[in-house]
Amino acid sequence: MNIGIDTMGGDFAPLEALRGVKKYLSQNEGNGIQLTLFGDEAAIKEIIAEEQIPEEQVTVVATTQIIGMHEHPTKALKEKTDSSIAVGFQYLAKGKTNAFVSAGNTGAMLVGTLFSIKTIEGILRPVISSIIPKKNGGTGLVLDVGLNADCKPEQLNQFATLGAVYAKHILEIPHPKVGLINVGEEEGKGNILTQGAYPLLKENRNIRFIGNIEGRDLFNDKADIMVCDGFTGNIILKLAESIYDISTAEALNNSYLNRFNFEIYGGTPVLGVEHPVVVGHGISKATAFSNMILVAEKMLQTDVLQKLKEAVQQS
Amino acid sequence: MNIGIDTMGGDFAPLEALRGVKKYLSQNEGNGIQLTLFGDEAAIKEIIAEEQIPEEQVTVVATTQIIGMHEHPTKALKEKTDSSIAVGFQYLAKGKTNAFVSAGNTGAMLVGTLFSIKTIEGILRPVISSIIPKKNGGTGLVLDVGLNADCKPEQLNQFATLGAVYAKHILEIPHPKVGLINVGEEEGKGNILTQGAYPLLKENRNIRFIGNIEGRDLFNDKADIMVCDGFTGNIILKLAESIYDISTAEALNNSYLNRFNFEIYGGTPVLGVEHPVVVGHGISKATAFSNMILVAEKMLQTDVLQKLKEAVQQS
Repeated sequence: MNIGIDTMGGDFAPLEALRGVKKYLSQNEGNGIQLTLFGDEAAIKEIIAEEQIPEEQVTVVATTQIIGMHEHPTKALKEKTDSSIAVGFQYLAKGKTNAFVSAGNTGAMLVGTLFSIKTIEGILRPVISSIIPKKNGGTGLVLDVGLNADCKPEQLNQFATLGAVYAKHILEIPHPKVGLINVGEEEGKGNILTQGAYPLLKENRNIRFIGNIEGRDLFNDKADIMVCDGFTGNIILKLAESIYDISTAEALNNSYLNRFNFEIYGGTPVLGVEHPVVVGHGISKATAFSNMILVAEKMLQTDVLQKLKEAVQQS
Repeated sequence: MNIGIDTMGGDFAPLEALRGVKKYLSQNEGNGIQLTLFGDEAAIKEIIAEEQIPEEQVTVVATTQIIGMHEHPTKALKEKTDSSIAVGFQYLAKGKTNAFVSAGNTGAMLVGTLFSIKTIEGILRPVISSIIPKKNGGTGLVLDVGLNADCKPEQLNQFATLGAVYAKHILEIPHPKVGLINVGEEEGKGNILTQGAYPLLKENRNIRFIGNIEGRDLFNDKADIMVCDGFTGNIILKLAESIYDISTAEALNNSYLNRFNFEIYGGTPVLGVEHPVVVGHGISKATAFSNMILVAEKMLQTDVLQKLKEAVQQS
């Protein structure tokens, strides 16, 4: 198996991307995974030498362009055909790699995914998810966190199926509870979207639906999988991230609040496409990169995408 | 001026409601405001005697029924015509009181408002707002936080106007900055609703529109007024409230996080109707009740509803 890595993405590229590769390899040497590094060949080779990164599992693919963090995604991908992101997707699309990981321009990563990689048959629209630290020490999963600003009830129902399969195989939650993010607990509450989604979720035999959850339930253990439209999910995710900013600014150093440092979770997989694509934060450092590679590896090892496909086709 | 108070609402009724009245009066004795207390006459009079609440500014109106916190709002209001909430609204509708304050069943308070009190001419739909503690020590205002789960762009634009007038006169923010809660900073980002609202906000001469804000900007000083649909706002509010729960559970005792104790803000006014209606939390204690009465008083003293009317009719 071969995982592609955009070494030019993120605020500390390429150094931290490569330190992440080193960290991953130090813990996974000889596991048979090959890593394909896209980026500035001279810079990569210099860091490989300096950091003494073992080269057996590593291949460098020279690219000459970089998509900046604030460039327009579609325009940049179209114009910069020799950028690390564009070439990374070419390799993934052609099967030269099996997964792709980047902490670069999120928009470009999402556009690249949607236009280069096939959506799994039966999937209405791909989705991105985020880990949420739970007070009980566990982790929850919110989806969608931004790919689909406007959703239909059928999509929310499918997010639940995708989230449940992902949680089972990747987060190792055996019987994940699914909650619908809503403005009241009782059935019938909500906006047009959630009122439409509730009965579908109730009928969905692929999931363990526990009903509506509210904003106050994000961090408690009512639900493991929390589904919502991408607009709501994106606001929730960024609000949750700002809790860590508060914790840092106020020097709270509390073990629970420290788990709001989203770097430890290693990026967000795009779910619903035929190959693992993991998108990291711009601020990603070595640990985040190493974790992103681990997520991609686990998605390949568990064949979770095939399981998503089967679950969606059953429902 | 006469402010009606539902003494039977909230988890600690009627004792904490009346302690709130005492607290308010101790700081505002002889200010000419009359308080009309709705509830169990015997219980109220006993507490007035025990707590030595001065009676000059107080009138008791005996009611014999109570709407429980979990009763169905419309059904309860229809059936319990001699409940403290129903009678409170009758007094307000007839002009026997000028404002109404309760920590009782929120749904019943909102239904009561919508069906007893006229919407201000030109207002599309009333709205509820919530204070948000800002990191800089100030306060922001989010609206809608739950009255309108599905909104049209025109409503979001009007929320901005209402919020700006309220912030100026009640929160004493001279030139409040208005932000549109969204999933990206640039114009054009968002769901169908925010994409439609942005150009209207940009053209609105009653407000100082600063553009889109994201989930991470809720607590910083980018915007004083933060507008969104009631679904999004309700999730944000309940999530923000749960930050205080975390702070308490983890015994953080941090001065900023302590400001997430929403009790200190004294409830949520319904904006867009012809009389002040202030809805408090079920957990409200004396300080919250005192603050709710203060909010109602300030809304009357500043004639903020007339100012809302003028602003809406100009725009």
